[in-house]
Amino acid sequence: MSKHYDVLVIGTGPAGQKGAIQAAKLGRKVGIIEKSPVVGGVQVNTGTIPSKALREAVVTLTGADKRNLLGASYRAKKDVTIADLASFSQQIIRHEWELIGSQFERNHVELIWGHARFVGPNEIEVLTKDGPERVTADSFLVAVGTRPARPDHIPFNPHNILTSDELLHLDRIPRTMIVVGGGVIGSEYACIMATLGVRVTLVEGRHQVLGFLDQEIAGTFQYFMRQKGITLRLGEKVESIAEIDAETDISGRPNSGPAKLVQAQLESGKTLRAEVLLYAVGRQGVCGELGLDKVGIEFDDRERLHVNEHYQTNVPHVYAAGDVIGFPALASTSMEQGRRAVCHACGVCDTRDYNTKLFPFGIYAVPEISMLGKTEEQLTDEGIPYEAGIAHYREIARAKLLGDELGMMKLLIHQETHELLGIHIIGAEATELIHVGQAVMALGGKVEFFIDNVFNFPTLAECYKVAAYNGLNKLNHV
Amino acid sequence: MSKHYDVLVIGTGPAGQKGAIQAAKLGRKVGIIEKSPVVGGVQVNTGTIPSKALREAVVTLTGADKRNLLGASYRAKKDVTIADLASFSQQIIRHEWELIGSQFERNHVELIWGHARFVGPNEIEVLTKDGPERVTADSFLVAVGTRPARPDHIPFNPHNILTSDELLHLDRIPRTMIVVGGGVIGSEYACIMATLGVRVTLVEGRHQVLGFLDQEIAGTFQYFMRQKGITLRLGEKVESIAEIDAETDISGRPNSGPAKLVQAQLESGKTLRAEVLLYAVGRQGVCGELGLDKVGIEFDDRERLHVNEHYQTNVPHVYAAGDVIGFPALASTSMEQGRRAVCHACGVCDTRDYNTKLFPFGIYAVPEISMLGKTEEQLTDEGIPYEAGIAHYREIARAKLLGDELGMMKLLIHQETHELLGIHIIGAEATELIHVGQAVMALGGKVEFFIDNVFNFPTLAECYKVAAYNGLNKLNHV
Repeated sequence: MSKHYDVLVIGTGPAGQKGAIQAAKLGRKVGIIEKSPVVGGVQVNTGTIPSKALREAVVTLTGADKRNLLGASYRAKKDVTIADLASFSQQIIRHEWELIGSQFERNHVELIWGHARFVGPNEIEVLTKDGPERVTADSFLVAVGTRPARPDHIPFNPHNILTSDELLHLDRIPRTMIVVGGGVIGSEYACIMATLGVRVTLVEGRHQVLGFLDQEIAGTFQYFMRQKGITLRLGEKVESIAEIDAETDISGRPNSGPAKLVQAQLESGKTLRAEVLLYAVGRQGVCGELGLDKVGIEFDDRERLHVNEHYQTNVPHVYAAGDVIGFPALASTSMEQGRRAVCHACGVCDTRDYNTKLFPFGIYAVPEISMLGKTEEQLTDEGIPYEAGIAHYREIARAKLLGDELGMMKLLIHQETHELLGIHIIGAEATELIHVGQAVMALGGKVEFFIDNVFNFPTLAECYKVAAYNGLNKLNHV
Repeated sequence: MSKHYDVLVIGTGPAGQKGAIQAAKLGRKVGIIEKSPVVGGVQVNTGTIPSKALREAVVTLTGADKRNLLGASYRAKKDVTIADLASFSQQIIRHEWELIGSQFERNHVELIWGHARFVGPNEIEVLTKDGPERVTADSFLVAVGTRPARPDHIPFNPHNILTSDELLHLDRIPRTMIVVGGGVIGSEYACIMATLGVRVTLVEGRHQVLGFLDQEIAGTFQYFMRQKGITLRLGEKVESIAEIDAETDISGRPNSGPAKLVQAQLESGKTLRAEVLLYAVGRQGVCGELGLDKVGIEFDDRERLHVNEHYQTNVPHVYAAGDVIGFPALASTSMEQGRRAVCHACGVCDTRDYNTKLFPFGIYAVPEISMLGKTEEQLTDEGIPYEAGIAHYREIARAKLLGDELGMMKLLIHQETHELLGIHIIGAEATELIHVGQAVMALGGKVEFFIDNVFNFPTLAECYKVAAYNGLNKLNHV
């Protein structure tokens, strides 16, 4: 006889975790299925945490964040090896495993190891190491995430034509690297590798990296990337990618580097060569293996699920949350989706919704970027009259102390009502700093809030006051 | 004939600066008088900025903030010299001078160098390097700050019995140090010096350092201080302080250290010896030299001015702001006081006052501490029923990445209304982080705000969500 649960969750990433814990807190009997040998999904094991740990290790070990402070010659540790970087990541990842495991235990969430496949509307077969096992449930939450897209025409291999999954297992630091794709993953890794001293060329089909960003911030970011030695090939498409023997360079001279290189041919006719190529264009669902046809659930050609406002698929007792449902596909939003899906499944109606649409984007490049609300371009398109209030980090004492003189904050302010319409930050602690303005926006505060507010001195949060003054001064002239 | 201003400000510290700029922005003719050879007051030159710059340099150079991350043996730079530290401070200070100077220029605030002394109700004589000069004004803002108290019975000298002013000029790093006074200045310097490897003994008359803090936070801080090797002598009073010859140690054995030591005799009979003693008990106004009797303004025996809610002294056209009016004497609150005083003087009534009483305390010790609103003890005294929601940094991914596993956040939540009554943080970025909760408190948000809010991942700001869950879970049991 198969074991029965109130709620069964598939996938232990952020959406699955928070969904399972929420159901348990509501007193439900909860099972959660994980096909990998470890919990945490992409977030913990191949995505968010490892890339952020790598970023932190690189920035610390190379002293990038203190370079201005201590003079250009300063390097915290002379010879950075992948071993240094990897050991640091592993320590964080192991901790996350423990944390998630203990949360499941404390909340009596049963963890089932194996591949899940629907065999009926309320029944799943889990292929465990001891063979198949059947479980049933009243409601399901599909939170299986995504994996990097691996188009057939790219000759991927584990040593030099990589997705972000393999990049973290590189056994050395390449001298040169091509990054294909200027989205979040491509941009973050391009910055991290460039900070390590790798000569990076980034190829992006559009004319701007991170297309969703406010253009001024993206422009500033591109300036920073170029300062770091990254070559940007914008508005360029990759025609073909191949591993080549590297006895001679492009102009026919003998080559002293590794025996194999990667060559990318651009549609514009340019040839790029590097030791390693990171392919970071798009991610792909993994719904095909779930037997969703047995329940009558449809998914699209990128194996993504479509859900309604309650996170229900076309089969109402099967919910989906996280990357598998597409945009915005952030760890932060996935958690909230998982929690809300399960609340609905358990008949708990969450009427508080004042800020669920007000989610921030956090980009852990070097430097950090964060945004909330509208961009200047969106507001202009929508015909909403605004003014921009700007604070430059170079005016802020705390930023000087941190050695960040390039950062900036931009507040977009409604010209008539003085409401906050958007917040855009690039610079140290951007991902933290955004939450001050987020609270003000969510709770209906106006830009005058920052004038009246008393900030600790010295803090980066003072940017809000400086930007508010800047914006109000401009508005006084209108 | 003497030059006339609408507003004359005395002192270029935070209160004076912001007051002068505010008056200029209101279109007034403004003069500002500075007796030191440089602008910025205590904040820039001997207090806030130098101590924070020293803190940042010490933490960076000794790698204290990355010690957990990179293993205990890691030190960013082996031999820390005072030259390293001083040069870093000087660079920041010079920048602040330029910033303040350019703000004055941009806003047409006239800077007058010299000692100010009232000679009549609307007239001041400034003793400049070219002799006395008379200026008149409709309104005055006295923002002359304070200096460290130097009681007569302490034999201060510039090399080993010091106030915080002289500490920054020490030409070496002592091996041992006595700090008298466990207030903000004493606690910050004790931590900074201990981080540098100095063996510090801190003597405080009360049974807790930083008496205004929530007791749990203060207790945690004291634990951290002891972990850092600081000896706390709480509930102890210093009877006498003397410089002594140090040929033998206290038990009579020959001594190999410097020829002179400082000896502090405690009332409890204990004798303390160290290379240097920092006296950090109280600060003292400097009103005596201003000729205030010529205007009929009274000050107390610590040379402090008393003001009403509009920052007016007993002579209505003379305002005072900043440290000279006493509590809370923070750079952040002084700025706001200066601004508000001048608004009133210029007849601009600022009706927005929703958060002027909600100012945070920021303590730049190692680790940082910040608080806002009430402590548990205050709430208990006032009979307000509350619950505490706690987040430990060790549960937060970003804190792991930063290597801070000891920090914590505590939200004090009204048991019935779920309003936020107090926020207490100890740990990395505490002074920044407090501003998220401050916005929520100021705008009337309840603790549920943090449950619904989407935070970037990974951030320290997630502490708010974890603490909110913790608090609400406890409340569900009530």
